Amino acid sequence: MGIITLTTDFGAGDHYAGVMKGVVAGINPSAAVIDITHGIEAYNIAEAAFRLRASYGYFPEGAVHVAVVDPGVGSPRKAIAAEAGGYLFVGPDNGVFSMIFDKSGVDRMVEITNPAFMLPSVSTTFHGRDIFAPAAAHLSKGAALEDLGNRLSAYEKLDIPRPLDGGDAVTGRAIYADGFGNLVTNIPGSVITEGARIGAGDMIMDGLSVSYADGKEGELIALVGSSGFLEISLNRGSAFELFGRLPEVKVLKGQGAGRGRRS
Amino acid sequence: MGIITLTTDFGAGDHYAGVMKGVVAGINPSAAVIDITHGIEAYNIAEAAFRLRASYGYFPEGAVHVAVVDPGVGSPRKAIAAEAGGYLFVGPDNGVFSMIFDKSGVDRMVEITNPAFMLPSVSTTFHGRDIFAPAAAHLSKGAALEDLGNRLSAYEKLDIPRPLDGGDAVTGRAIYADGFGNLVTNIPGSVITEGARIGAGDMIMDGLSVSYADGKEGELIALVGSSGFLEISLNRGSAFELFGRLPEVKVLKGQGAGRGRRS
Amino acid sequence: MGIITLTTDFGAGDHYAGVMKGVVAGINPSAAVIDITHGIEAYNIAEAAFRLRASYGYFPEGAVHVAVVDPGVGSPRKAIAAEAGGYLFVGPDNGVFSMIFDKSGVDRMVEITNPAFMLPSVSTTFHGRDIFAPAAAHLSKGAALEDLGNRLSAYEKLDIPRPLDGGDAVTGRAIYADGFGNLVTNIPGSVITEGARIGAGDMIMDGLSVSYADGKEGELIALVGSSGFLEISLNRGSAFELFGRLPEVKVLKGQGAGRGRRS
Repeated sequence: MGIITLTTDFGAGDHYAGVMKGVVAGINPSAAVIDITHGIEAYNIAEAAFRLRASYGYFPEGAVHVAVVDPGVGSPRKAIAAEAGGYLFVGPDNGVFSMIFDKSGVDRMVEITNPAFMLPSVSTTFHGRDIFAPAAAHLSKGAALEDLGNRLSAYEKLDIPRPLDGGDAVTGRAIYADGFGNLVTNIPGSVITEGARIGAGDMIMDGLSVSYADGKEGELIALVGSSGFLEISLNRGSAFELFGRLPEVKVLKGQGAGRGRRS
Repeated sequence: MGIITLTTDFGAGDHYAGVMKGVVAGINPSAAVIDITHGIEAYNIAEAAFRLRASYGYFPEGAVHVAVVDPGVGSPRKAIAAEAGGYLFVGPDNGVFSMIFDKSGVDRMVEITNPAFMLPSVSTTFHGRDIFAPAAAHLSKGAALEDLGNRLSAYEKLDIPRPLDGGDAVTGRAIYADGFGNLVTNIPGSVITEGARIGAGDMIMDGLSVSYADGKEGELIALVGSSGFLEISLNRGSAFELFGRLPEVKVLKGQGAGRGRRS
Repeated sequence: MGIITLTTDFGAGDHYAGVMKGVVAGINPSAAVIDITHGIEAYNIAEAAFRLRASYGYFPEGAVHVAVVDPGVGSPRKAIAAEAGGYLFVGPDNGVFSMIFDKSGVDRMVEITNPAFMLPSVSTTFHGRDIFAPAAAHLSKGAALEDLGNRLSAYEKLDIPRPLDGGDAVTGRAIYADGFGNLVTNIPGSVITEGARIGAGDMIMDGLSVSYADGKEGELIALVGSSGFLEISLNRGSAFELFGRLPEVKVLKGQGAGRGRRS
């Protein structure tokens, strides 16, 4: 069988993902292609990196994760395929997988250069269709990583906005908003200690809530979301609309008595 | 094999549905997961109830219908699995299935409490991933409903806006707008008698049209839509944009000569 | 197995495509249904025709391509099924397939009239569910085209906006914008000669770029896109937002020295 996932910035209305699935079906008809999301903000590699990291581990081992957030398509950036943490990864070497690779290490990685694993005609504008989909389909059928091209020993690191620990406070930021307007930050839940207060923009929340249903309707809450990172959420509303942007978020350590429930 | 459907308010851009599919694939690789929609308005249980009712019966018997419109996730609301009308249903006990259950009756229903049918770690914020997807995957593989938890004898009823029959007129309302801007109401087509006029907001239509192509371009028409409920539609345009909201809709019985065609 | 694709103007949030997949699953459980797009602008048959033409050939031969962009549903327009260029096509006879048929010729075509290949109850508003999905499912299972209805010898031609060659210049227009805001025109890349300049609205570009990454951030570029047609693109931005509409586009032949790279 074989599972292939897609994470792109194509948007919900485009035919590009459908065409990639057509290419896969022509090479491995028994592959199951699952959309992780096509809703990454255009060209936003960091958002893709965070959302892939939150998603990839929920798929069966051996799944081929394809990312096409690729502002450099047609430029000299490499196309890569890698094995890491029990999964395969196919996409541009622009850092989109680097959060995962940093965490799990990379077992093997190649540059995709072998035309036998591409469409006969390769455009300069749509490598998702011409290079990544065929490579993923061949890998899902059992092709060896090494057949796709030469070994690489290093991958492009992403300049990910990382939270800064300033002693009294950890300062991070919202990386993306989900469909409910929840602001998902780059601050791991593990840094939030008993009694911490959370600041988002110029709002302060005393302590962590446990679920989105906490607080009154319209109340801003902070909680550790399902991906393990701090989120800012508006009960029955959109925190993203409230702020109108992706705000800076701070964890003020161990100050105040903490009013909210704690997880 | 086994069919699992998803109806959620995640929105088109989120990775949450993809992650649920990954969880399903890990438990039952041969299940086919079909998206009914992820476009339910956030937290709008009534919209989900109407659209599920319009959709579920078109799937093969035995399909597992999963709904994740769940503003109370993490609160004490129950997670349920049920058999009704030849289908299985998995989701929160918040009334999202109650229109179907009211119609078909419920054969068996349980509260999902058995951790053997959940992910090892259950969050307070994403039961779609941690509870509903695993439960549906196990059911699609043939698990017995009773293995998931204890029997329940009653389900939460939804406070659905129901049409009111005032003698001369039936008063209902638009429940949601589809992608074309057609306003789908809670008024069953069966209540509309020969010669009835239809009011939407402060517009009046004489009689029913048969298809969206009836009327002139830009003309507001009323018709019984594909789900059997009264719809208000703007020829080649969006009735939802015209009204700017989900208006009250009335059926004025047997008045006027009726100008439109009748079905 | 059998592959069925869907191209519609339902929008990302609707349950209509999901219901069509349920109908297919009831008739041919082993069919794989692949969404090409549900993001065609409502009622825009020309957009659907262009995007289908850009997509259909990437699927394995024998795939059944279903299009439901159907403003005339319920009116006397015919429902058709056809074999052309190694594929099957199912949809309304409104020209949505005519760009493909014009190119590849039509081997066989029928009007779908046999109720044995429809749902038992056929609405006047949703032939995607009641006629096209069942027909496609039966065809994907091996039903003969001729069993669906009587032969047709001609199909509806679409009044497609075609580029006009005025000698010094070819004048066309943007047909749709993709999710990145790239403006995809009706001008084939093959008409663009060495030294040509490209005009879009009142902007002029000297020559063709090779990839979207060409030019500086915020620079408007012209290139031949992945479907072989001229595109207008804004580096790291949305050309569609820049123009606010689908502009007229001109290729001014062989004038100027050409500053951009050429493909």
